Amino acid sequence: MGMEDIDMFSEQNAKAGVTFPQGFKAAGVKAGIKKSGNLDVAVIYTEREAAAAGVFTQNAVAAAPVFASKKVIATGTAHAIAANAGCANACTGAQGEKDARAMQEITAAALGCTPEDVLVASTGVIGVNLPMDKMEAGLKAAVAALSTDGSVSAGNAIITTDTYSKSCATEVMLGGKQVRFGAIAKGSGMIQPNMATMLAFITTDAAIDGKLLQKALSEVVEISFNMISIDGDMSTNDMAVVLANGAAGNAKITSEGADYETFKATLAEICTGLSQRIASDGEGATKFLTVHVMGTKSFADAKTIAMSVAKSPLVKTAFFGEDPNWGRVICAVGYAGVPMNPETTVVKFGGIPVYVHGVGADYDETALKQVMGEHDIVVDIDMGIGTQEATVWTCDFSYEYVKINGEYHT
Amino acid sequence: MGMEDIDMFSEQNAKAGVTFPQGFKAAGVKAGIKKSGNLDVAVIYTEREAAAAGVFTQNAVAAAPVFASKKVIATGTAHAIAANAGCANACTGAQGEKDARAMQEITAAALGCTPEDVLVASTGVIGVNLPMDKMEAGLKAAVAALSTDGSVSAGNAIITTDTYSKSCATEVMLGGKQVRFGAIAKGSGMIQPNMATMLAFITTDAAIDGKLLQKALSEVVEISFNMISIDGDMSTNDMAVVLANGAAGNAKITSEGADYETFKATLAEICTGLSQRIASDGEGATKFLTVHVMGTKSFADAKTIAMSVAKSPLVKTAFFGEDPNWGRVICAVGYAGVPMNPETTVVKFGGIPVYVHGVGADYDETALKQVMGEHDIVVDIDMGIGTQEATVWTCDFSYEYVKINGEYHT
Repeated sequence: MGMEDIDMFSEQNAKAGVTFPQGFKAAGVKAGIKKSGNLDVAVIYTEREAAAAGVFTQNAVAAAPVFASKKVIATGTAHAIAANAGCANACTGAQGEKDARAMQEITAAALGCTPEDVLVASTGVIGVNLPMDKMEAGLKAAVAALSTDGSVSAGNAIITTDTYSKSCATEVMLGGKQVRFGAIAKGSGMIQPNMATMLAFITTDAAIDGKLLQKALSEVVEISFNMISIDGDMSTNDMAVVLANGAAGNAKITSEGADYETFKATLAEICTGLSQRIASDGEGATKFLTVHVMGTKSFADAKTIAMSVAKSPLVKTAFFGEDPNWGRVICAVGYAGVPMNPETTVVKFGGIPVYVHGVGADYDETALKQVMGEHDIVVDIDMGIGTQEATVWTCDFSYEYVKINGEYHT
Repeated sequence: MGMEDIDMFSEQNAKAGVTFPQGFKAAGVKAGIKKSGNLDVAVIYTEREAAAAGVFTQNAVAAAPVFASKKVIATGTAHAIAANAGCANACTGAQGEKDARAMQEITAAALGCTPEDVLVASTGVIGVNLPMDKMEAGLKAAVAALSTDGSVSAGNAIITTDTYSKSCATEVMLGGKQVRFGAIAKGSGMIQPNMATMLAFITTDAAIDGKLLQKALSEVVEISFNMISIDGDMSTNDMAVVLANGAAGNAKITSEGADYETFKATLAEICTGLSQRIASDGEGATKFLTVHVMGTKSFADAKTIAMSVAKSPLVKTAFFGEDPNWGRVICAVGYAGVPMNPETTVVKFGGIPVYVHGVGADYDETALKQVMGEHDIVVDIDMGIGTQEATVWTCDFSYEYVKINGEYHT
């Protein structure tokens, strides 16, 4: 994968996932909501009350569970996450709101907490109502199955067209205590077809003030999940939440000192790793592309340029074809709508300059061919007019993408 | 094609093209610039001086001929257009500027005018220098071949991955005189791969003040060429120019009265028709999609929403798959970044409501299946919060698109 944080995502840590931190249990069960018959309902639970933070889709057509979970986050605490795949409960009107509320009530009754303690998330087909009889049975079964070994089943219960569940676990010293983190995530990007959505559930036994937890998550999301593009389509159901139950016994983080920085850096490492894996597992992907733009006057400019390149179908089909077509890259830079000067701009593929100051570079064709043949390819774009930078992760566009999304799903 | 202005684009009118107006000659020749050996150099000429207007790519990485032609337009008049396909002369630095200038000089010398009278345009591979020996011979041959029957060959000489040359001709009464218009255009949209570019060359024998001509063109382009999206990629070489030589003898249009309105309406009809044909002939297209957004507070909002839908790979692959997937459409509306209220929004496919006020509509599946099976499909989106509207034309995303753009062109 070409990613540095391999240990956090080791097989063992991926297996531990959200139940690695003390006091968390999880389970995934088969409720018959996915047509495939695979695992499709997940519950994550901490008996000890957790500080809760969340970020949600900016899509004006947000799904019912997004509205319900935003209200939970507004209370600052939660005990559980109840999620399903196979049905997005989006564009479902008043019935959708009732169904999201019922997910909270059923889960809360089974766990012995209040509905306001239960975050809810759904992913799958838009415009279809949740089959609430199946959902009720599934939620009850998941609560009954909760265990400290349940992260793998919970992770598998929230995936849709993903080829695998993205999960990890790690620990760091905070205030002299070992503090643990775990996560499960899904989403072949914002790219999902009928089955929209990026979901990320992160658990930690750190003790941290709820507002600082939200601040850390909001900042980290800007440089991780918000830096992925597969096809530029933002889902109606995207959600990333963190539950911090304080079971590690560290001195509660209540201000932005060294402990906060360590906490935030760990969260960033988790979210960046999950983001890279989501992009790399994009629908139909055969390449994992890192688009690194530097030398701009602001982070926003660098991100705009990187996204313009990462979203260009011409760039993405070129990489699919292993075509070192820097003309398409510089073209996408040029129409990004951000100040640029061709005379100061340099583009590199895998470290090899291909476009330098307005014209194509003389490059070693054999070396460049080798770069284009790799699975992981880094595109560096130095605009030469500033000191800021941004990195976006994406994948190529293949026949398989058209196949997955051009098939008639009914 | 489902387009109303069929007469202007009739076989006979398409054949007449840019030489239909009095005083215009054209020719296309084979200069060996295209690898296929097809026609690749075109010249359009009016001995009588023409008022000249142009609009050009907004891409910060504009090609050398774009800069050269902008200078010609700044003089307000021109006698000729010299164009080639097969090489874009983009990202070619100082050498590219010299080559564009040489195209002007060679053509002017052969015609007996000045280089400042010659607009130049190139389309094809980015980052490659023009083969100037072939270009020189080609331009001289084209000038020698100029004729009033030359529009078809000129049209074919500027196409790249287009499956056919888009051209038309028409006439209207202006100030009691029959005034003629003609046009040739190319570009499978802004979508062109190595071979970027939309080019449109429009001729008329109307007499019109140069500033009014530019005003008319600029306004018309906003509702025609700027309303096409195939893949959202804006080329380095896009150009639309009009030459008006006054040979019709109408009272010169010098103010914005009825004659100006008639002139502008005719220009709009031409540019809209060309735009629809460019979108319909998008690379790999199997569907022609009209995205009509109404009920917004501004034209800009309507255009933003329509473009968000038209550029969504999920929407485009759904139409390729003949999948009536309104969830992807409403999702793209929701992330357009423009005010929207799901409760007031209605989406129709081929006139059939599929999403009404926040939820899916009950529709006749047989009727909708028939709509999705058509080549031309209209998507109506009524936002219900204003009185403004906009229409964007696009095509679907097919396996063929990936094939055309994922092949290694060297």
